[in-house]
Amino acid sequence: MKSFASDNYAGVLPEVMEALQQANSGHAGSYGNDPLTKSTMALFREVLGAEVDVHLVFNGTGANVLSLSAAAQSYNAVLCADTSHIYNDESSAPETFTGCRFFALPTNEQGKLEPETVSQRLIRRGDLHFPQIKILSLTQSTEYGTVYTPEELKAFGKLCKEQGLYFHIDGSRFFNAAASLGCSLKQISTDIGVDLLSLGGTKLGMMFGEAVVVFNEQLREHLPFKHKQVMQLASKTRFIAAQYQALLQGELWRRTAEHANAMARLLHEALQSFPQIRVTRPVEANVVFAIIPLAWNEALMQQFPFYVWREDLNEVRLMCAWDTQEEEINALIQSIKQLAGV
Amino acid sequence: MKSFASDNYAGVLPEVMEALQQANSGHAGSYGNDPLTKSTMALFREVLGAEVDVHLVFNGTGANVLSLSAAAQSYNAVLCADTSHIYNDESSAPETFTGCRFFALPTNEQGKLEPETVSQRLIRRGDLHFPQIKILSLTQSTEYGTVYTPEELKAFGKLCKEQGLYFHIDGSRFFNAAASLGCSLKQISTDIGVDLLSLGGTKLGMMFGEAVVVFNEQLREHLPFKHKQVMQLASKTRFIAAQYQALLQGELWRRTAEHANAMARLLHEALQSFPQIRVTRPVEANVVFAIIPLAWNEALMQQFPFYVWREDLNEVRLMCAWDTQEEEINALIQSIKQLAGV
Amino acid sequence: MKSFASDNYAGVLPEVMEALQQANSGHAGSYGNDPLTKSTMALFREVLGAEVDVHLVFNGTGANVLSLSAAAQSYNAVLCADTSHIYNDESSAPETFTGCRFFALPTNEQGKLEPETVSQRLIRRGDLHFPQIKILSLTQSTEYGTVYTPEELKAFGKLCKEQGLYFHIDGSRFFNAAASLGCSLKQISTDIGVDLLSLGGTKLGMMFGEAVVVFNEQLREHLPFKHKQVMQLASKTRFIAAQYQALLQGELWRRTAEHANAMARLLHEALQSFPQIRVTRPVEANVVFAIIPLAWNEALMQQFPFYVWREDLNEVRLMCAWDTQEEEINALIQSIKQLAGV
Amino acid sequence: MKSFASDNYAGVLPEVMEALQQANSGHAGSYGNDPLTKSTMALFREVLGAEVDVHLVFNGTGANVLSLSAAAQSYNAVLCADTSHIYNDESSAPETFTGCRFFALPTNEQGKLEPETVSQRLIRRGDLHFPQIKILSLTQSTEYGTVYTPEELKAFGKLCKEQGLYFHIDGSRFFNAAASLGCSLKQISTDIGVDLLSLGGTKLGMMFGEAVVVFNEQLREHLPFKHKQVMQLASKTRFIAAQYQALLQGELWRRTAEHANAMARLLHEALQSFPQIRVTRPVEANVVFAIIPLAWNEALMQQFPFYVWREDLNEVRLMCAWDTQEEEINALIQSIKQLAGV
Repeated sequence: MKSFASDNYAGVLPEVMEALQQANSGHAGSYGNDPLTKSTMALFREVLGAEVDVHLVFNGTGANVLSLSAAAQSYNAVLCADTSHIYNDESSAPETFTGCRFFALPTNEQGKLEPETVSQRLIRRGDLHFPQIKILSLTQSTEYGTVYTPEELKAFGKLCKEQGLYFHIDGSRFFNAAASLGCSLKQISTDIGVDLLSLGGTKLGMMFGEAVVVFNEQLREHLPFKHKQVMQLASKTRFIAAQYQALLQGELWRRTAEHANAMARLLHEALQSFPQIRVTRPVEANVVFAIIPLAWNEALMQQFPFYVWREDLNEVRLMCAWDTQEEEINALIQSIKQLAGV
Repeated sequence: MKSFASDNYAGVLPEVMEALQQANSGHAGSYGNDPLTKSTMALFREVLGAEVDVHLVFNGTGANVLSLSAAAQSYNAVLCADTSHIYNDESSAPETFTGCRFFALPTNEQGKLEPETVSQRLIRRGDLHFPQIKILSLTQSTEYGTVYTPEELKAFGKLCKEQGLYFHIDGSRFFNAAASLGCSLKQISTDIGVDLLSLGGTKLGMMFGEAVVVFNEQLREHLPFKHKQVMQLASKTRFIAAQYQALLQGELWRRTAEHANAMARLLHEALQSFPQIRVTRPVEANVVFAIIPLAWNEALMQQFPFYVWREDLNEVRLMCAWDTQEEEINALIQSIKQLAGV
Repeated sequence: MKSFASDNYAGVLPEVMEALQQANSGHAGSYGNDPLTKSTMALFREVLGAEVDVHLVFNGTGANVLSLSAAAQSYNAVLCADTSHIYNDESSAPETFTGCRFFALPTNEQGKLEPETVSQRLIRRGDLHFPQIKILSLTQSTEYGTVYTPEELKAFGKLCKEQGLYFHIDGSRFFNAAASLGCSLKQISTDIGVDLLSLGGTKLGMMFGEAVVVFNEQLREHLPFKHKQVMQLASKTRFIAAQYQALLQGELWRRTAEHANAMARLLHEALQSFPQIRVTRPVEANVVFAIIPLAWNEALMQQFPFYVWREDLNEVRLMCAWDTQEEEINALIQSIKQLAGV
Repeated sequence: MKSFASDNYAGVLPEVMEALQQANSGHAGSYGNDPLTKSTMALFREVLGAEVDVHLVFNGTGANVLSLSAAAQSYNAVLCADTSHIYNDESSAPETFTGCRFFALPTNEQGKLEPETVSQRLIRRGDLHFPQIKILSLTQSTEYGTVYTPEELKAFGKLCKEQGLYFHIDGSRFFNAAASLGCSLKQISTDIGVDLLSLGGTKLGMMFGEAVVVFNEQLREHLPFKHKQVMQLASKTRFIAAQYQALLQGELWRRTAEHANAMARLLHEALQSFPQIRVTRPVEANVVFAIIPLAWNEALMQQFPFYVWREDLNEVRLMCAWDTQEEEINALIQSIKQLAGV
């Protein structure tokens, strides 16, 4: 049964599974010392047009914690959106492993942070009684499925540079954002002044694995040691590398992400014909947020599992994955039609 | 090229790869809420004959840190062998994430700890100026490829119970130990009084994944929360579960581990005919330690990579994996014969 | 020069200094193993009417961190007021040493938390992706110099019991609160269901030293070890004990706190005659918050240092200490009269 | 009753008590922003002949943890003597608050580390699987009351510089060492290449308080923030500053330390006449270690408390303090004479 609950309910892309099988040949050095990992690093550098370091890790929380712990002293603070995954869905791992305070900032209607919100929070700098703000962490695409434009990102990059902040992007759905913008990965990373990127693979159809991409040279010294220390260094690294290579080669990532995005757009369009439903956020990536009649939840959820995002409004989240099919969207719409009495 | 460097240089067992493909069908709940993970938990309980909790994690360091952090207060200390992986190969992750002191104890000729060594170290208990010893961590099979017998383990289990210690086993090669002893998994876990077991899968031919098995009921409360917090909870958990199911069903683990063990025995026997070589440890699992002429290293390593374990003695480690073939052993022996002028 | 900046600008009460000198006689056991510390423990138990454990520490941040770290697992969260000292003035020490998330809740006009605010925040309990809320920390008297009544505290005590939370009070000015309420220390601690109290001494005229009072038996096991571990165990403990004994004997604390409170009331009354000034918070302890004309700041501060609490409103904080004199209040008022042109 | 148990059983030097009273005059800025703290900083710089930063803290464990946490990344390791206070008497605070591994090295007969012992332990550098050794911590004077000469210290300073290690000295009895050597504080700190010094005051007759002296400019950036964060920043700092000023002015520290050292020498000489007693360590500072007949312990301890250091040998520690009197030494010797039947 397909669901609209989360893109991590989906399995593994056929091309990725194929790459895993091809990588499974004979012996290879462990902990990153294998040809496949090395060539994947080279491919990342080519794609991003920068001398980045890339650390392959297991999961998104690991990617974020590794990024933040490499950039922060324990007396520092991190600014993030109050909707962000690091603030809402990673237990207290960010605090425990960085020692830092996390300040959650309100987002605008599109679920995005605005530079002014960040600027206003840069308080008590140099005051040793207060956690010293040192990192800004954005999510691209956001938890609401909206996408920061390159210009918006550049404004944050500039602000961070001016204010001595490190700029981190939690890109668990970064590929969906690039597909949505029709731009290269480079245009929303290297070109906008990001220091650290958690580049997600699992939600786009990898079996497991994420990447921490380090753009800022000053952060490179500690990362390899932290990588091991935060328990995120795989022994058989080739099997993460192989998956990323499959995604990056020939821009499989773009076709895959664009498909998921297109399914969300299709769903969005179809939902607009129901007066009982209000789509609540711009649909820019692979998810639709909508307020639906509470009475419909049970019947719909049995067939098409999804999450209720805000219970007070019955705002639901309908997430499309790489394997969401047009007929599944149609089936969902059919069910809604029945409930709507259309 | 096959190597004798490490069993994590080997790839994925065909049966495991097959299980991964079969698991890749449609959507499934994430973070352990899927049928495959649930049935794997049931299978573990059946195999171990106990109402264990099992937490599937990514890697061995994660398994050990999760185990230890669930059992320790930050003012505690852990006793372990001075050869142990947690003391030698996990950076300072154990200290950073538990806050504890780690006391490394000397092992006997077989690379095993002895109960007396542990007892003698139980000092200053109740003295708040000294880290309070609370956990004993053994490795089974040991880093020297030797295997604790059920009786030896029971003696440690008894000691821990009497002294109020938690008993942890780092079983990254636990399957090799059980195969070597010809016993069930239950006989060297449930039956000997262990509280926590890190049960390794990667070195036996899984792509990634280890399991933390919790035998002590008192430790169950915190584990699920710690599991997430230490960044070791996979979103697509089914793909770890599927691999363990493949290993456990029909005791694939035993055939696989026994093969690797048998390759080590074969190598051991062959090496004994060379007067220039001295095998230094009992060969009970899947590894042979031997002192060889230093002058041979370069030529041998080019063909058959391995690690020099102790440089002062030129004691080398020759590790066999699930995919080590008899002809590879023979080829290695041929090369040695040439070097030995036989 | 006396100031209205903070009660920790004041020195040491004569009676406390005298007690320190008397304690300075011959040798005494260290780390709490001395007669003076033991008799002080007994005195605490007598005064509080409960079998409390008391841990003497160096400073307020130490007292709070010791309390919280003894009650929390690292995956927990703490609820506190957004005005609280632990959230605003202890760097990220609370996060670093507990590993926990801290959620800052809005306070009412009196700077107090309300039970509903706490209840509403008890979300996602049992959800391992979210920090698990386990501690409520109130400040008595509050940072705004207001005082929770015994009834208000009981409501929080009841809520905590019902919801499985530990109830911590940051009582860096707890004596001022008891003096303000005209009640015993017992009535606002033992009797209201608090689990842990940071009982401040420094701001009431001690040279250094605070006390962690443990009411909940379940928390007693770890505290002695944590006390040492968080670097808050003094070797010459008798010199903290002697100071507390001086404060507790004959209720010196009450006379001292009441004097500081009375000075704040005097100041409050005098300020009410100036139409340019608006006192912004109920004056219940030893501090007055008031909005004054910005143009007055410089002239006033040169003579009578104080803090600007909110720059946007020019709300200033005027803190009275144990040594604030009536003539100093009068002198401040004289200066204000001149600025006001009265 | 005077004891020979520890120099922290002694109280406060009269001159220090006098300084505390003089410092207790009116209001003063808190958290180090007071004239007395500032002039004390200047005095430290003058005495040490270097542009050091000085952070006044509460106790020795705090001083050591602050020093180490400022110099270490969490993936680092610290080398220290197996007799050191940080390894034996600070709970697991060093691990918990730095995240580091601590490697305890054997000392020579005099209880001193030797450069070769350190060099041999500099293993696996750059290997991310192993904690990266980054700090050497010596104790001056050592736990055995022996004293590193300036030449010995210079050898360690040179080694640290060459090997990229930070050099920390735990100087809880640093003044005793300088008095023993007849040298200036500068000659065994600034001049020998130390990076961080925990300079102890409590054991020399302060009521409380230690100092972290930072010689290495690169370590200055983080220290002020860490100082607050590790809960070691006193609000009424002037009362630590005043004590140090008393010790430093006119070299009160030297007269005080020399007296304690002289008492130990006197005791040493007297003990040599008893054939039943063997003094086991060179007596260079304020302590005598001796093996005495086990049968004497009870009778002696009732009058003159002391610690049994090694139970297997009945090696006892007899510590002299600033207030140890010649007649007390004589009384101890009289008791021994009776036991010895002389």
